[in-house]
Amino acid sequence: MPEAVSSTDRMAELGQQLRVDAVRACAEAGSGHATSSMSAADLMAVLLAKHLRYDFDAPEDPGNDELIFSKGHASPLLYAMFTAAGAISEDELLTFRSDGSRLEGHPTPRLPWVEVATGSLGQGLPLGVGFALVTARLETTGSRVWVLCGDSELAEGSVWEAFEHAGTSGLDNLTAIVDVNRLGQRGPTRHGWDVDAYSRRIRAFGWNVIEVEGHDPDQIDRAFATATGTTGMPTAIVARTSKGKGVAAVEDQEGAHGKPLPDTEEAIRELGGRRSMRVRVARPESLRRGSPRRSEPKLPGYEVGAEAATRTAFGEALTALGHARSDVVVLDGEVSDSTRSGYFAEEHPERFVQCYIAEQQLVAAAVGLQARGWVPYLATFAAFLTRAHDFLRMAAVSGANLRVVGSHAGVSIGKDGPSQMGLEDLAMFRAVAGSAVLHPCDANQAAQLTAGMADLDGISYLRATRGNTPVIYGPEETFPVGGSRVLRSSPEDQITLVAAGVTVPEALRAADRLAEAGIPARVIDLYSIKPVDTATLRTAAEETGRLLTVEDHWPQGGLGAAVLEAFAGGPPPPRYTTLAVRAMPASATPEEQLRHAGIDAEAIADAARALAAS
Amino acid sequence: MPEAVSSTDRMAELGQQLRVDAVRACAEAGSGHATSSMSAADLMAVLLAKHLRYDFDAPEDPGNDELIFSKGHASPLLYAMFTAAGAISEDELLTFRSDGSRLEGHPTPRLPWVEVATGSLGQGLPLGVGFALVTARLETTGSRVWVLCGDSELAEGSVWEAFEHAGTSGLDNLTAIVDVNRLGQRGPTRHGWDVDAYSRRIRAFGWNVIEVEGHDPDQIDRAFATATGTTGMPTAIVARTSKGKGVAAVEDQEGAHGKPLPDTEEAIRELGGRRSMRVRVARPESLRRGSPRRSEPKLPGYEVGAEAATRTAFGEALTALGHARSDVVVLDGEVSDSTRSGYFAEEHPERFVQCYIAEQQLVAAAVGLQARGWVPYLATFAAFLTRAHDFLRMAAVSGANLRVVGSHAGVSIGKDGPSQMGLEDLAMFRAVAGSAVLHPCDANQAAQLTAGMADLDGISYLRATRGNTPVIYGPEETFPVGGSRVLRSSPEDQITLVAAGVTVPEALRAADRLAEAGIPARVIDLYSIKPVDTATLRTAAEETGRLLTVEDHWPQGGLGAAVLEAFAGGPPPPRYTTLAVRAMPASATPEEQLRHAGIDAEAIADAARALAAS
Repeated sequence: MPEAVSSTDRMAELGQQLRVDAVRACAEAGSGHATSSMSAADLMAVLLAKHLRYDFDAPEDPGNDELIFSKGHASPLLYAMFTAAGAISEDELLTFRSDGSRLEGHPTPRLPWVEVATGSLGQGLPLGVGFALVTARLETTGSRVWVLCGDSELAEGSVWEAFEHAGTSGLDNLTAIVDVNRLGQRGPTRHGWDVDAYSRRIRAFGWNVIEVEGHDPDQIDRAFATATGTTGMPTAIVARTSKGKGVAAVEDQEGAHGKPLPDTEEAIRELGGRRSMRVRVARPESLRRGSPRRSEPKLPGYEVGAEAATRTAFGEALTALGHARSDVVVLDGEVSDSTRSGYFAEEHPERFVQCYIAEQQLVAAAVGLQARGWVPYLATFAAFLTRAHDFLRMAAVSGANLRVVGSHAGVSIGKDGPSQMGLEDLAMFRAVAGSAVLHPCDANQAAQLTAGMADLDGISYLRATRGNTPVIYGPEETFPVGGSRVLRSSPEDQITLVAAGVTVPEALRAADRLAEAGIPARVIDLYSIKPVDTATLRTAAEETGRLLTVEDHWPQGGLGAAVLEAFAGGPPPPRYTTLAVRAMPASATPEEQLRHAGIDAEAIADAARALAAS
Repeated sequence: MPEAVSSTDRMAELGQQLRVDAVRACAEAGSGHATSSMSAADLMAVLLAKHLRYDFDAPEDPGNDELIFSKGHASPLLYAMFTAAGAISEDELLTFRSDGSRLEGHPTPRLPWVEVATGSLGQGLPLGVGFALVTARLETTGSRVWVLCGDSELAEGSVWEAFEHAGTSGLDNLTAIVDVNRLGQRGPTRHGWDVDAYSRRIRAFGWNVIEVEGHDPDQIDRAFATATGTTGMPTAIVARTSKGKGVAAVEDQEGAHGKPLPDTEEAIRELGGRRSMRVRVARPESLRRGSPRRSEPKLPGYEVGAEAATRTAFGEALTALGHARSDVVVLDGEVSDSTRSGYFAEEHPERFVQCYIAEQQLVAAAVGLQARGWVPYLATFAAFLTRAHDFLRMAAVSGANLRVVGSHAGVSIGKDGPSQMGLEDLAMFRAVAGSAVLHPCDANQAAQLTAGMADLDGISYLRATRGNTPVIYGPEETFPVGGSRVLRSSPEDQITLVAAGVTVPEALRAADRLAEAGIPARVIDLYSIKPVDTATLRTAAEETGRLLTVEDHWPQGGLGAAVLEAFAGGPPPPRYTTLAVRAMPASATPEEQLRHAGIDAEAIADAARALAAS
């Protein structure tokens, strides 16, 4: 029978139980972070026993608190908590790190009580900000967010993006618990047990900071109570702890990181033996979230033959989508005037989150929002999304549904120069597990794809460009993910030109020149770069016998690579040439840039002629 | 004739001249950040006139101060300073942002007085830390580092990694100048003119902080003098300024970001007209750097048939390299026990820089070190290098020579799970301009490649793995960048297996099975994934008629893509199959991981049989 654990002694007992179970799990696995679990065991025991509100039978309940192990390597402790809560059995606990187990080396959402994966340090607090924003900005749930941080990971800048965002937004439903155990992976941390060094910094960012002795249940209990009662600002509990607490062979010792203890039986004895306390965890007032309002968006239409920028169409479509759906939220990295997400902000300010120039927090906030059922779009310059690469990688491990838009892609931005040009974004997003990568060439296509992303699972990326491109599709046309458009085709075609984005109009112009030169060319608009339209590419290759790809991107990993990968496992491609940006650009006009990079109509026509003659 | 500018009036005049010249440059270009230049003009006028020590005729002099425009978009101001210093002519100033000009939209090392490119915000201060470390740790130059930061960019976590590193290292030769002009790109910044909000935070990180009125030359002058005289801690000068200062039409106005002024002639009149003051900039005591000691390293040797981890060989070779060369510096992201860079730390502690878990600062510090002539190697887990993607991207714009090592690549790490597995590192590094991407399969190869990286230009990446692999090469063998090794070959080969790293031994085992099944297979160790050995791949394809690639990486952008790209512009490849990691891994042993991913010997043999039969 689960019991209400509230006395000092019982909380201390529970802490020991969590240690023993973490030690056992690591011993069984032959690996895992026992000592990093042991330092935080009392903090988590008190949280579980008295402050967490969570219905383990209904993990989807929006009233549940959120518990994030930012120090994801302390997963044995988390799993020991789940065991104490009766959510998993002792048998399952001992499957830790084994093939097929839900109890992975670092927590992932394979477990229903884990909403976001951790294990790359410095991500838990930014993710926590995302969850906290839901309650603070979007719905009234009363749910609180608890984030267990390590001390080492406070060296990550992303953590300070989160402290800043939460502090200045007054996210009082967020509590950071910093486990200052003094020892990192390879030795002492920068600040050791100088708890005040952490406190000063966090306080300067607008947080309420409480220092505690991290193995004193009563002190911890009072700190959590204060955190819960503090309004207008988030609270950080900075706890002085010992790594490996409770077992002399490893306590506060270097060289004991990330390993099972040397003598499991002795350690368990030292910790007072095995226990099997079952804790009655407080449940939240159960909430039912209302269904979001959803209708067909009235997308903007652009006249064929006009000129418009795909980023503008994105912004206008996004705004229309905001009217049609009440669950769409938009996040900005302080460039909403450039990306055009500012259009949405004007009409839906209550669902617009300004993250300032902090791309890691930008992505993390979106991951938190989607985990709570919202439909986030985030946008910044394509180049600056590289700043959040690790967060995107981990979002895929979390199974997050994110919609990401990168504007100002490619050399075609013109005079700003290479620092502002996204030239690796296709490679980056294609190598995100389960992603979709879309690159529209005209405004109607951009609007349709923008709206369609709302219903996509996984991480979808839309690559938008700065300058105007000709409108070539009617506003009624649709563009399924995984599709392509054959823009020129005849049975006599001698070559296929595959393009996307700004290179589509260039390819069309090249096809005109080639036609004049007696070389009929097929032109494919490969707006869906991942997944890719294998069938159309293979057919075109077979029918035309030559293949040329052209992209405003480095030669590696982008459109050209996507096309070539489409022939794996089938008939091989015919002779091919890949045009891409091969030298570091400098400042120049968009036209000069395309010319210098060798991806304009003339370069395409020249390369196609050479390829056709080869 | 250059004059010594020191009176309040003349400094103010110089500030106006810098504004006028910035306005003129933007007007001529039709774009550029005039207003962001105008806010910082007085700060930079005083710096140039009285505090910077720089010999514009000898930019390589190690005694020179370093001036970094972290707010790189204020490049017109930087170029106006160069004009005032007589380094460039007024004619060249007006080439700003035009095709072929050295004066790019954001500063790059095309100009001899710019050592590192900026323009991606939040990078200048971390780079400054790198430069400051040279003086603080490696050589006595007396040179100071001045970094001009915007206020918006203090939202970037990377800036706080730098504040932390510099503050706790006591880098008193570093001065950050924060231009608090209240307005970001799309509107007010988070803290507006709350100068104290910035001061509090920076002070908490161990800096000396001075607040100044940013348009008062005397206040600024005193602040710089205090910064120069402060020992034991870096100084931040937090300056309250007005964006567009001096021109009523734009001063402190929203909507004036990143544009030329509406009326250039009127603006110049308001600013007091054109001036052509030439400033005598103080020169440093000229220094000549001694040549580093360089000899052939005595690399470790591993016995053929033994087993060893490539990460271990990296660490041992690096240590040997440290003995042979006095210019090699190693940087760690708090994982030196795992990456084995800790071996170097033990023998060469004076050239080992601990950056803790702050991968952006890790890369930025290395970029600063190499700009001063040092030969940095940095290492962390391959997965966590994604954290520094934007810094690597910009390092390529800077033309930096960096040696980067990512350990624990791929699913073969085993039980730790996907958060710790580098599965996109090949795609990321291949899409870094001018990079080399190396992936050794055995210890001798790893040692040779590690040593060879010291002499490579550009950004080179070595992918190392956690577990032991069989030693298949002798210690005397060499492995040129751009090469490959054909491990099995006969005139009867019916298929070519291309592998690297842990998939090489798997491919060799698969070849054994295939031989038993009557399918002779060629095996290529593609240790140089970029540049790639096009000739060997094309020959093998032609001779064997089937191609199979296998990699411990996502299917996109890695080894398979490199192989396919090698056929561009030549004869097309034959039928091919690409084996890679296609589903999100979980915890399991290394062997189970390779099996589940379908990249072990059995999977290779199966796929090869199917391909050979197709």
